[in-house]
This record gives sequence, structure tokens and C-alpha cells, in this order.
Amino acid sequence: MSGAVARLANINVGGAANAGSSFKSQVQRNANDAESADLGLIGLAVMGQNLILNMADHGFTVCAFNRTVSKVDRFLANEAKGKSIVGAHSTEEFVSKLKKPRRVMLLVQAGKAVDDWIETLLPLLERGDIIIDGGNSHFPDSNRRTKYLASKGLRFVGSGVSGGEEGARYGPSIMPGGDEEAWPFIKDIFQSISAKSDNEPCCEWVGDEGAGHYVKMVHNGIEYGDMQLICEAYDIMKRGLGLDSKEIGDIFTKWNTGVLDSFLIEITKDIMYFNDDDGKPLVDKILDKAGQKGTGKWTAVNALDLGMPVTLIAEAVLARCLSGIKDERSKASTKLEFVGRANSFEGNKEQFLEDLEQALYASKIISYAQGFMLMQEAAKEYKWKLNKPSIALMWRGGCIIRSVFLKDITAAYRKEPDLENLLFDDFFNKAIHKAQPGWRDVVSKAALLGIPTPAFSTALSWFDGYRTKNLPANLLQAQRDYFGAHTFRIKPEFANSKYPEGSDIHVNWTGRGGNVSASTYQA
Amino acid sequence: MSGAVARLANINVGGAANAGSSFKSQVQRNANDAESADLGLIGLAVMGQNLILNMADHGFTVCAFNRTVSKVDRFLANEAKGKSIVGAHSTEEFVSKLKKPRRVMLLVQAGKAVDDWIETLLPLLERGDIIIDGGNSHFPDSNRRTKYLASKGLRFVGSGVSGGEEGARYGPSIMPGGDEEAWPFIKDIFQSISAKSDNEPCCEWVGDEGAGHYVKMVHNGIEYGDMQLICEAYDIMKRGLGLDSKEIGDIFTKWNTGVLDSFLIEITKDIMYFNDDDGKPLVDKILDKAGQKGTGKWTAVNALDLGMPVTLIAEAVLARCLSGIKDERSKASTKLEFVGRANSFEGNKEQFLEDLEQALYASKIISYAQGFMLMQEAAKEYKWKLNKPSIALMWRGGCIIRSVFLKDITAAYRKEPDLENLLFDDFFNKAIHKAQPGWRDVVSKAALLGIPTPAFSTALSWFDGYRTKNLPANLLQAQRDYFGAHTFRIKPEFANSKYPEGSDIHVNWTGRGGNVSASTYQA
Repeated sequence: MSGAVARLANINVGGAANAGSSFKSQVQRNANDAESADLGLIGLAVMGQNLILNMADHGFTVCAFNRTVSKVDRFLANEAKGKSIVGAHSTEEFVSKLKKPRRVMLLVQAGKAVDDWIETLLPLLERGDIIIDGGNSHFPDSNRRTKYLASKGLRFVGSGVSGGEEGARYGPSIMPGGDEEAWPFIKDIFQSISAKSDNEPCCEWVGDEGAGHYVKMVHNGIEYGDMQLICEAYDIMKRGLGLDSKEIGDIFTKWNTGVLDSFLIEITKDIMYFNDDDGKPLVDKILDKAGQKGTGKWTAVNALDLGMPVTLIAEAVLARCLSGIKDERSKASTKLEFVGRANSFEGNKEQFLEDLEQALYASKIISYAQGFMLMQEAAKEYKWKLNKPSIALMWRGGCIIRSVFLKDITAAYRKEPDLENLLFDDFFNKAIHKAQPGWRDVVSKAALLGIPTPAFSTALSWFDGYRTKNLPANLLQAQRDYFGAHTFRIKPEFANSKYPEGSDIHVNWTGRGGNVSASTYQA
Repeated sequence: MSGAVARLANINVGGAANAGSSFKSQVQRNANDAESADLGLIGLAVMGQNLILNMADHGFTVCAFNRTVSKVDRFLANEAKGKSIVGAHSTEEFVSKLKKPRRVMLLVQAGKAVDDWIETLLPLLERGDIIIDGGNSHFPDSNRRTKYLASKGLRFVGSGVSGGEEGARYGPSIMPGGDEEAWPFIKDIFQSISAKSDNEPCCEWVGDEGAGHYVKMVHNGIEYGDMQLICEAYDIMKRGLGLDSKEIGDIFTKWNTGVLDSFLIEITKDIMYFNDDDGKPLVDKILDKAGQKGTGKWTAVNALDLGMPVTLIAEAVLARCLSGIKDERSKASTKLEFVGRANSFEGNKEQFLEDLEQALYASKIISYAQGFMLMQEAAKEYKWKLNKPSIALMWRGGCIIRSVFLKDITAAYRKEPDLENLLFDDFFNKAIHKAQPGWRDVVSKAALLGIPTPAFSTALSWFDGYRTKNLPANLLQAQRDYFGAHTFRIKPEFANSKYPEGSDIHVNWTGRGGNVSASTYQA
């Protein structure tokens, strides 16, 4: 039995203990009465069903509804049987069974279906009622819906829900945002059913409008990054050091007791030990073409839109794209050979494995630092209040990226909620300084040995760029002024009357009259 | 006098020689007659004025128009005086002065202004007339406009024009796409005024709909990449080797006689030699915050949309973003110190400088290979015919990225128009193999020394990933199946009746019943 399974029993203890609420006292009433349900949920796919069961387990009465009504009956007759779950056969009946202010949660496909349901519900709801979208909506849609429903006197909540089907059933990470007036009316339900970390619910109010779905999006992007980093470490051990899956599993087992202790490292260890019927590791037989659902891409695109250097998630998404063109890679593998001055690993393997752990840890720190920078910039850009300490807390349990690491991030932001950058926090500052030498050696050796490390490398380059006061972008500005008269500014320490600080300056770089053109070079 | 300036005289010789056309014979007519103008151009900002003057220099009669009509008179009385340029004071008059089929070129701000002008012109034009958008439009707009105008019986051309103001005046690179029926009617004018490379015009028909603006967009992305690579080489020489600007200028001078011979290397050399009044290099005083106009970002976003691993342009755009947060970097520079096992460059500087040249060359090859992969995928996705050999040719002259290098790319695609990847061409295949050892050493040493090389590094990681038959994405797929039952596929060589090729497979990774959940780990 794996450690992951052994820990299963703990998951909902905190939840049950925390759930003593005003709603509970009313559960005694006949669940089929009018206005008896604490919450109504529309959309009975597995996520929706599991959330309802989770709520019922915590003592809430839930009304279930689905466009195809036969699904309601099936659900009531089977999974929901004997629980505080009622159903409805029409939207009108559904709404009539909800306590006021009504709480309606949608678990339907992102996009048009959400808007259609909102329009269907609008005439049936009253001022102050609440619509919660718990699907994978893109945050601009949630921005729009919050404003739209507010204009109708209703309260909209866009909530990220992470942890997959089983998370929904036994304790997801929940990231609600939108109309903050709705929060007191849903807080108890949401925090009761959510995962717990050190007895704290992995659910807090995130911020305004689409902030909840935004934070869920960044969470997914960070998940892409974490997975890519683990893959690079695996590749280095496998191809760089020549270790087999069992040996690599032992390394991940060891790492899972240290700073990297996390759900993803744990399942990676399990995967390394998992043999096929022939006694050989199944992982070696799996096709190396990665799928993606698009939220990682959304994060990278948003980073580009906001002009924020979120390089690690971008590289992780692009690494999946590169894995996707397997046929072309197979062809390329016959045409492009490794050429280098070193052909195999030389040095102390033990030391190198310690360096590798540090490289993974440092790169992960950079990825989270970038992610929080992005969320900070988004809050500025979209004029949201963002609850940063709570974000780290929410990611500590219930979701794929949960880890010991996120405890330290929570602590950093609790100590200093306005912390400008994670790397300025004492704990992470020490950690990144300690990790540097090994990290550098790993990136350096991988380059020499021909093992691709897009995420490790971009993390290190970003770190070295970030800690650099004077980057070579001075040359870039000179080039742009040379060929396009785009002008530049002067460094404050060199400002004078000829080149005043803050002025847009153009110089005649070639000494001849007029602007030098972009057309003077003849190839 | 710089080499760049010395070459100026050549720029239009080919153009004049090539311009013997059917249109020319009609120039004798009184230019103010009705239906006398070969082309009408709307938008008299500098780009528009310069294109008109360029056309007039090549013997074409052009009718100038502008929404603010006083600008027309000023232009006619000054820059246009004595040339085959006529004006108009109303849209009706403007249209009446054009030969049929009418050719109307818009040089107005991208976006709404283009649509507004199209609507204004529509009732005045006849079936078969041509509207050309020569601005910086986003390609989806050009897709839409091509279809829209075709539905009205008109022909739309979206044309990238590169080379800045001076390029427009003396020979731009022109990238027209859209309704191919228009091409015979504008080919002569466009190829006459364009830059020439080895007497070939840097203008050819690109492809359908928005293909012209698309190729211009990718061109700009590649320009971002080229500039970033040069900046990294500069930074390595400056901070890694401790060279001064004069010494670095000497290196760029040398490089400009070899494989890197290009406009950007040439102006970089000029910049290195350019001293301020105090005798010190001006470049050192320029603020290292890079601006961006957004076309680089468009390219990166489109690559993500199409799922193509265009890593170098993405890193170049993100490097500009990192340069942009100078205040935070300055603060970070006091809190994040370099720690490593090597503190300064050790080894043979001469050898390292040769390696650096190879690293820059190899990274550039990767960037162009990625750019052509992107265009190839776009052609598939948007159902365009793309003229690949011509694209390289168009970029050889007139624009910022023009270089000897693009001659080799032209040759590669001329030899094999359906070449799957630039790296499969003999010339570039040899080049990248030769460059590898030095490239690896540069990336490796920069990591050890703490010099950021996001573009060099991502190029090498991409190359090592691209030439890898079995990437570690097998682990990633196993992880996704473990925590989310996302399924995986089997490598064909391991397929059997239990795991058939092409099937979506899920296994029970922990050995216990049911899917293992994402909720079993408690941080």
C-alpha cells in the first residue's frame, strides 16, 4: 500500500469537525419540503454528483437538477439514496426548493452552457440570490458575468474547483471569487466540503469578479510547470546517469521526505515502481506525447498579455507541444546527432543527485515566484483585491500541486501579506542561495550531455536576469533607436542636461545627417 | 563612414532596372486627367508619403489622399512637387482619378480605421477593383476582410511592409497576401519599389487571406529573437569575459564577415564604437528597459494557440518583459547574490569567442527553423497555400533581419520547397552539427558564471528535445493517468493485445480498487 493511500483516512476529519453551522440545524426538516435545500446544483456529471454527495456528507441538504431530467431520477435512486439530497423535474420546481437567499451552483460545461443557464434562471430568482459557476470557465467570462448579474441585483461567484472527481467527492481545493456579498452565504458550505490542511480549510475568498477562476488558471499553469520539472529530473537520471526506474523510484522516495515532499513526487515514485506483467516498468512503454487541456496555455497567453515574464509555465506548455510532434522528432532523431566535448557523465553521482534535488527545488521556487508575480500584476490590471496568503493555503490541500512547500509559501505571505516577491522572503531567500551552486551544475552538465532542460534552464536564466541590475537591454534599445528612431532613455546615474532623465532621446548613430535607415544594408 | 552607409548606394539599382512595365508607358499622359493614376494611396503619414515617393521614383503615377485634406495640399506643394503624383479633395474625386481595375492602398492605423475606409470606398468601387491594406494589421482581420470584400466582388490584399520609414522610401520588404486574383495587377508596382537582393525583388505573393500579414508578424517575432541573441552574446562578452565596448565592437566586426553577416550585427558594431562626448561608450549609459510594440507577442500567442513549440521568440518577448521591471530588478540585485562553484571565466578566451559565434549562429538557425515550422502549421490550420522559398527571399532585403543567412534559407527552400524542417537541409544540418560543441560550452559556462541566456538556452534545449525520439513526456502521461484517469497510449513497439496501439489506456496505479484519487495526499 502506497503512502498516498495510507494518508487517505485523514482527509475529511477536519471538514466534519469544522462543519457545525447554522445551516445544519435546519437539516431536520423534511428534505422534500419547499425551500428546504441549502444549495441547488445543476449539472449531474461526475464532478457535480460528487460535490453534492460531499455536501450531503457534511450535513447540508442539496437539490439536484439536470437538463436531462432522467439523470436526476437515476441519481436519486442510486448514489443519492438515503442522503439529504432532493431533486427537481423542472427549473421552477428546482428554484422553489431552495432556501433564500437561493444558492444555485452550476457544474456545466464552460462557455455557452453557463450563459444559457444564467438566462434560464434569471426570471426565477430574486434580488440577493446567488449563482455560483464551479466549472472551468475562463476568467474574462467570470468578470463579465459578475457585472451582468450585479446589474440584475444578483450575486455571481466564479469558483475554481481543483482535485478532480475524487477531490470533489472527498475534499477539493475551492477558489471562489466574484461578488463578495455572496461569501457569507456560501462560506460555511464551501469550507466544510473542502480539503483541509493542518485543520484549515483549503477554501477562502479569493477576490473580485473572475479572480477565483483566474487563480485556478494560474494553479493549473503551475501544475504544468511542476510536472515538467519532475520530467526533466527523471530524464537526467535516466539518460544522463543511466539509472533504471527502480533506482529512480528510490531517489524520488528519498526526495519525498525532504523539501520536495509533495503529491506529485509521491505518485512519481509509485509510477517508477509500477511494473507491467512482464516485470518491466510500465512507464518505459508509455507513449511520450503529452496532452493538454488549455488552461496552461491560458496562463502563458495571459502572462504575455500582461507583459509579465512567466517563463517557466510558458516553457512547460511549449515542452508539451514539442512532445506532441513525435513523428517529426522520430525523424529528427535519425538526422540530428549529439556532438559535444563530453560524451557521458563524469564526476560524483551522489553529489550530482543532491545537486539535482536542489535544481528541482530552486526551479520550483522560481515558478511559484513567477506565478505570484503574475497574480499580483493581474490584481493591479483588473483592479481586484487578491488575498495572497489564502491562495497558497488553498493550494496546500486537495489539488495536484499540494505540498509541504506551499506551507512555507503560506507562512511567507502570512508574515508579510504585501511581500513584493517570494524571493525576498527570508526562508526562500536562504533556500535559493543554498540551491544555486548545484542548480548551476545541473543546467551546465545537461547542456554538455545533450539532455533537454527547458524548465530548469529558463528558471536559472530568469533568476540570473532578475537579480541583474543592468541587463543587456541597453543594447536592444540602442538598436531600436539606430534602425527605427524608436528613442531610448538614459540611466539616471548618467543623466545630464544633454540627456535628461526620463526624456525620450534619439541620436544620430552613424554621424551622417538624418536618421539612419533600416534600408542601408544590402544582403 | 560605416559599412552600412557605404552600401546605401546600391539599394535601388535593381529596382529601377526591373521596373520596365506596361504601366510606365502611360505615365506620359497628363497626370491630372481622370483615370490617370496607377494606384491611389490613402493615409499621408510618413510611411504613406514615402511609399508614394518611392512609387513615383519608379515611374508610376500615384493619387494621394488623406482624411484631413489639407495634408494632401501640403504634400503636393512640398515633397511631391514635380513628381508623377496627383491629389484629391474628396473620396469621389480620389476614386475618379484611378485607372481600372482601381488599386487603392491604405496606410492608416490598424484596426477600426481600416474597416471604416473599406466601408467608405465600397459604394464607389466596381467589381474587380482592389483594396490593399499596407498597415500593421493583425492577420485575423485580414482573413475576415478578404472574405468580406470577395463577397462584394472586390479583391482584398493584406500586405506586410517592413523596413520602417526609410525602407518605405527607398526599398522595403513587401509581403502581400489575400485574393490572389489581385496579384497580377499590383505585382509590377510592388516589385519595382521593393528592396532587391541579388537583383531579385524582396516581394512575392505570400498566400491566401491574412497570409501576408501573418508572415510579417512572424518576421517581427524573429526580429525579437535575433536581437535578444545578440544581446546575450554582448552580455557574455561584457560581464563574462570582461571585455570593453571597443573590444566587443571588434568581435562583432569580425563576425560580420562570417556566417553572422547581417544588418543587426553591423549596427551593433557601430553602436559599440559610438562614444559620448566624454569619450565613453554611449551604450553603457542607455537605460536597459526594452520597449515592445506587440507583434512579437502576437507571434508567441499564436504559437501557443497552434500548439507549436516556438520557444525562442517566446523567450525573447519574455526577456523584454523582464527588462521592463527594472525597479524590481534593482531591488532584487541587492538581495540575491551570485553563488556558484566558479567565480570567473577560466579557459581559452579565443576558443570561447569562436564558441560564442557558433552558439549565436546555432541559436539563430533554431529560431528560423521554429519560425518556418510555425508558418507551415499556420498554412495547414488556416488552409493557406504558403510560398516558403519566397518568404526567405522577401526577408533577405529591406528589413531589419536581412542577412547573408537568409540567402542560405532561400537556397534550402528553393532546392526543396516542401522541406519538412530547415534542420533537415544539408547546409543547415552540417552547420548545426559543427556548431554544437561550442554552443553547449557557452550555455554551460553562462549557467556556471551567472549570466542569463534565456534564448541561447532555450534554443539548445529545444534542439536536444527535437532530436530526441523518447522524451520524458511518458512520465507526464503516467502522472496524468494516475491522478486524473486521463489515460495514455502505448509506444507502438510495446503494443500487444492488453495494450493495443492507438487505444486510450487507464491502469490502476496503486493496486487498490477504483481510480486513485487526487485527494489522497495530505500536505
